[in-house]
Amino acid sequence: MENITQLLFTLFLIYSSAKLLGEIFERFKQSAVIGEILAGVILGPQVLNLIGTSEIFPVLAEIGVIILLFNVGLHTKVEEIMRVGKSSLVVAVLGVVFPFVLGYLYTLIIDHTTTEAMFIGAAMVATSVGITARVFADLGIIESRAARIILGAAVIDDVIGLIVLAIVTGLDKGTLSLVKIGLITLEAAAFIVFLIIVGRRIVHRVLPRVSKFRTKDAVFSLAILFCLLLSAVASYIDLAAIVGAFLAGMILSGLNLEFNLSVKTESLYNFLVPFFFVILGTWIDLSIFSQPQLLWAALIITIFAVSGKLLGCGLGALNLGSKEALIVGFGMVPRGEVGMIIASIGLRMGAITSDLYTVIIFMVMATTLMTPPILRKLVMRKPEEKPQEGEKMKPE
Amino acid sequence: MENITQLLFTLFLIYSSAKLLGEIFERFKQSAVIGEILAGVILGPQVLNLIGTSEIFPVLAEIGVIILLFNVGLHTKVEEIMRVGKSSLVVAVLGVVFPFVLGYLYTLIIDHTTTEAMFIGAAMVATSVGITARVFADLGIIESRAARIILGAAVIDDVIGLIVLAIVTGLDKGTLSLVKIGLITLEAAAFIVFLIIVGRRIVHRVLPRVSKFRTKDAVFSLAILFCLLLSAVASYIDLAAIVGAFLAGMILSGLNLEFNLSVKTESLYNFLVPFFFVILGTWIDLSIFSQPQLLWAALIITIFAVSGKLLGCGLGALNLGSKEALIVGFGMVPRGEVGMIIASIGLRMGAITSDLYTVIIFMVMATTLMTPPILRKLVMRKPEEKPQEGEKMKPE
Repeated sequence: MENITQLLFTLFLIYSSAKLLGEIFERFKQSAVIGEILAGVILGPQVLNLIGTSEIFPVLAEIGVIILLFNVGLHTKVEEIMRVGKSSLVVAVLGVVFPFVLGYLYTLIIDHTTTEAMFIGAAMVATSVGITARVFADLGIIESRAARIILGAAVIDDVIGLIVLAIVTGLDKGTLSLVKIGLITLEAAAFIVFLIIVGRRIVHRVLPRVSKFRTKDAVFSLAILFCLLLSAVASYIDLAAIVGAFLAGMILSGLNLEFNLSVKTESLYNFLVPFFFVILGTWIDLSIFSQPQLLWAALIITIFAVSGKLLGCGLGALNLGSKEALIVGFGMVPRGEVGMIIASIGLRMGAITSDLYTVIIFMVMATTLMTPPILRKLVMRKPEEKPQEGEKMKPE
Repeated sequence: MENITQLLFTLFLIYSSAKLLGEIFERFKQSAVIGEILAGVILGPQVLNLIGTSEIFPVLAEIGVIILLFNVGLHTKVEEIMRVGKSSLVVAVLGVVFPFVLGYLYTLIIDHTTTEAMFIGAAMVATSVGITARVFADLGIIESRAARIILGAAVIDDVIGLIVLAIVTGLDKGTLSLVKIGLITLEAAAFIVFLIIVGRRIVHRVLPRVSKFRTKDAVFSLAILFCLLLSAVASYIDLAAIVGAFLAGMILSGLNLEFNLSVKTESLYNFLVPFFFVILGTWIDLSIFSQPQLLWAALIITIFAVSGKLLGCGLGALNLGSKEALIVGFGMVPRGEVGMIIASIGLRMGAITSDLYTVIIFMVMATTLMTPPILRKLVMRKPEEKPQEGEKMKPE
């Protein structure tokens, strides 16, 4: 019973600080997300240490980010992603090449091994689309062309990130083979193509039938089940779980209005999503600020991480005009879990030092924290994209 | 990453079996709840053993039952509980006295010690209102008079259960004092009275102001926070967390329609509540069926547990007419967590044998499983109570 009490208080603490700081940040015309992350920094081990080590909160966070991307998917029509498919592909590929090369070269220059340089390069590759999606959703422009290109690119990015991870871990273990890389790529691509072609048809046939079930909100339950299943399968084939959640949402987007799916998801979203950003905040390691040398390296890596995505993705989206290209570029800047996972694999394998690991974590955090205010500024300059905001405020 | 994959698959498994078996049971005109509990039996350690020992699922279950009782509270006006207050009090007190005496006497008769008899009696006292509330909600009669009396009685029941627990554990440790019992009673009563008088005023002033906040759905977030806080506090002063959740809902019930609180809670309810009933199912111990002697004792205890509540609560509600008194009586039959907690405390203290513990668990399960179909039958006979069902089906 003691446990439940503590757990409920911690739930209250996390959710209330997230909402409070989010509100304060919005009043200062900043992103609520930053407030939520800051709540995590304050509650986390670096400052007040009030969250403890329970596995519950990271799990709630994971379910939260899954619901976030599912909801984003619900607002993303397959056809519209297809229409920007070529742009997304170019954005994704260039956005991988530039940061990788910059990170790789810089690590070599500061006297590290080739393997280390490969790991740093790899950790700089994968975009974490959660932050961008949330900022776009908060601003009510999740259905804009820039958003679509970013979302499409993020999915492709994740597949490329997977391949890069296979290459760098394979390199170090000496087990790299072209066959293996080919298989991983094929598996991921087959999963996505199968879902979009076959999965979508099945869902569009099954869902309307389920609406006649006796169970209350049976369609909504089935949609959530579909999201959980695809997240699990995506995670099983080593894609990020959120890629599965996004695909599930996208496949259901055609039925969203008919069955009120995104409206029904609102309270789950409202309750669970803040946990993701708060937990993200608890992971921020402030100790780097007491090590000037490391901080210096971290700042340089961060600059390369940002300029790499800006150059690569911006270049890839240049045909949209410079303003939108800039939005796409910055939208791809935040690195997330995948970067940290690659760094932690490197650390565990002994392929990178703990100093380099700290540098990567700093880069992930810096790119995460800088994106919302910059995106907000850039988007706010484009008044013609804003009208949807009013609609988002009142879901019913 | 392995962990997240497994977790997502298990989430999918639990939620899909709950919904599937719930649907099947509804088609056979049974309660969906029983289907969900059965899903738990099948997935649990007794049959397929697919859920594992992760602490995540019991926590989701606890949040689920909190949301359930919060939602029930939202449909329960304070004034209407007050109006049936006297009936609730009589129902609660008689519903405690009868089962306690029956359990106590029977345990003495089959040659156990006084302490053991006290524990068995105590474990037969506390009503678990989750099952009844869910059945009433599914049938759309959560706002009926019988429902109100049961809900009021369940809150009082919990306070009495707390006192009985203090007495039996105190008895065994020899630390029982009237002062302590008085303090516990006072604390619980003060909490409830304070909330209903002061808490309600504060909430009714604060909530409408929060509706002007920038944060999307700020009122809903505050309502959830209020629910989490009261659950935590209730749990802290050794009341069941769900008593806090119910009180939170009840205090907010006056603002429910204005701010769409129960409609907004729907998807949280839909997603989380099934976890409670599935986890309840995983706790069912089937091994008792291979021990005829124990089974016999368990059946007799169960009969006393049922007839004790029926006599006590039915008698207390007899002024409502025999049909409604019967509904109130059966509505109070299910025992739940509190009974199991008292039994497990007794077991840990060495005050009861593991055989008696198994008997209690059987009684808890039997009363839980028999209630939904019986209540459904009884309620269905009363067609004038049904019209609200249509409204419940389409929340928007």
